[in-house]
Amino acid sequence: MDDFAADPSHPRYQSLLLRHRLEEAEKKGMLAGSAMIAHGRGEAFDYLIGETTLPSAKAATVRALSALKSAQHPVLSLNGNVVALAGKEVLLLAEKLDCPVEINIFYRTPERMNALLHHLEAIKLAEHIDVEILGAEPNAKIPGLKGPRANCTKEGILDSDVIMVPLEDGDRCEALVNMGKTVIVIDLNPLSRSARMGTITIVDELTRVLANMIQWSGDDVELSQSEAYDNDAILAQALAHIAVKFSGQDN
Amino acid sequence: MDDFAADPSHPRYQSLLLRHRLEEAEKKGMLAGSAMIAHGRGEAFDYLIGETTLPSAKAATVRALSALKSAQHPVLSLNGNVVALAGKEVLLLAEKLDCPVEINIFYRTPERMNALLHHLEAIKLAEHIDVEILGAEPNAKIPGLKGPRANCTKEGILDSDVIMVPLEDGDRCEALVNMGKTVIVIDLNPLSRSARMGTITIVDELTRVLANMIQWSGDDVELSQSEAYDNDAILAQALAHIAVKFSGQDN
Repeated sequence: MDDFAADPSHPRYQSLLLRHRLEEAEKKGMLAGSAMIAHGRGEAFDYLIGETTLPSAKAATVRALSALKSAQHPVLSLNGNVVALAGKEVLLLAEKLDCPVEINIFYRTPERMNALLHHLEAIKLAEHIDVEILGAEPNAKIPGLKGPRANCTKEGILDSDVIMVPLEDGDRCEALVNMGKTVIVIDLNPLSRSARMGTITIVDELTRVLANMIQWSGDDVELSQSEAYDNDAILAQALAHIAVKFSGQDN
Repeated sequence: MDDFAADPSHPRYQSLLLRHRLEEAEKKGMLAGSAMIAHGRGEAFDYLIGETTLPSAKAATVRALSALKSAQHPVLSLNGNVVALAGKEVLLLAEKLDCPVEINIFYRTPERMNALLHHLEAIKLAEHIDVEILGAEPNAKIPGLKGPRANCTKEGILDSDVIMVPLEDGDRCEALVNMGKTVIVIDLNPLSRSARMGTITIVDELTRVLANMIQWSGDDVELSQSEAYDNDAILAQALAHIAVKFSGQDN
């Protein structure tokens, strides 16, 4: 699906590829006005992390994958940036997990919803991926949220027991936690409200997380569900990594 | 010049105002494609700093102001984001310093240059500011840079002894330092190459720096030029502040 022509050996290839995907998505009307700024914030935190999957992020990813695989009704919630940056990868993961995805955007307009749905349907067709895409016709509300932001589907987000919300805002994350769900957050800022609200928080870049999950989805990760998991400890490890970088011990 | 309608008592007012200015500038063709992402990176670092002027940034700002006031040929170099975010403030500072500004953009096209010039000229007219705006007709080159990025004016950047380059890229910053100039950098990332290359690096948000400089420009700051100044120590103080935040001692 990518018509990106840069040299894959370029040291900034992945970063340039993601920017290209956002620019293409913007032209198609898939993004909110704040999408580029949000991506830039993520880039800054990824720079601090070292643009790599930290051991603490790997542990959280394994735990998240285990929770998704053992769930009764797992769902992947997608916003504009997620569809733009990793539409194919989230569909591939959903197919492996045999779960639906649901488009759930903060600034909802019919035009944006149509653009996002069309983009995902085109990927499904081109890549022969069999996944149910929910969100076009909301028939339920997330308690505790106001206006169109509360909209969701009963068969997707409302009835889910485990939900992954990459790049989600703090309010919606909190509302989902308050519904008693296991909420998996992907957020490069370990201090963000979403990161602190999540049941399982993966402090890592979206496309790296999805690549890891797809790679590890066949493994017998369910076993790790019986082990203790401390999300605050995971966040503290990410913070400590960045603190070492800033204290100059790593430069 | 701002038609921004948000409530100034909103806790995110300044952040929303700056985003609004960028969005308006984008509509006018003033910005490069990467402008929004760069702004988002800055937002992330400002969040880490605490969205405040650190004591180390204040010390660097006073030193920078002193260097500009005692210079033979000071100049303020402006790129698209600087003009968009703080066009009025940078003109007001230049007027107080009695120095020219020079538009010097990385991705140079006639359309972008015209849009930026027009924006600044409109501010000059509306605010009755008397400042020379250079850059429309480059007649010199910055040694060590290739292509249109090397373009500058002899009477502005080339002959300057003290130059302020807010939000500048590392290559150009290095080239200016190699010319023997006193280079004042404004950069929210204390680890960036520009921050490390600068003669005087202010780790603070652009509009806060300009407001401080305008406020302090009448003070007798020249005296501080005789004192010792250690830019590495200033950067280390900014890093230490962020490291404390991440190590959890400040949360």
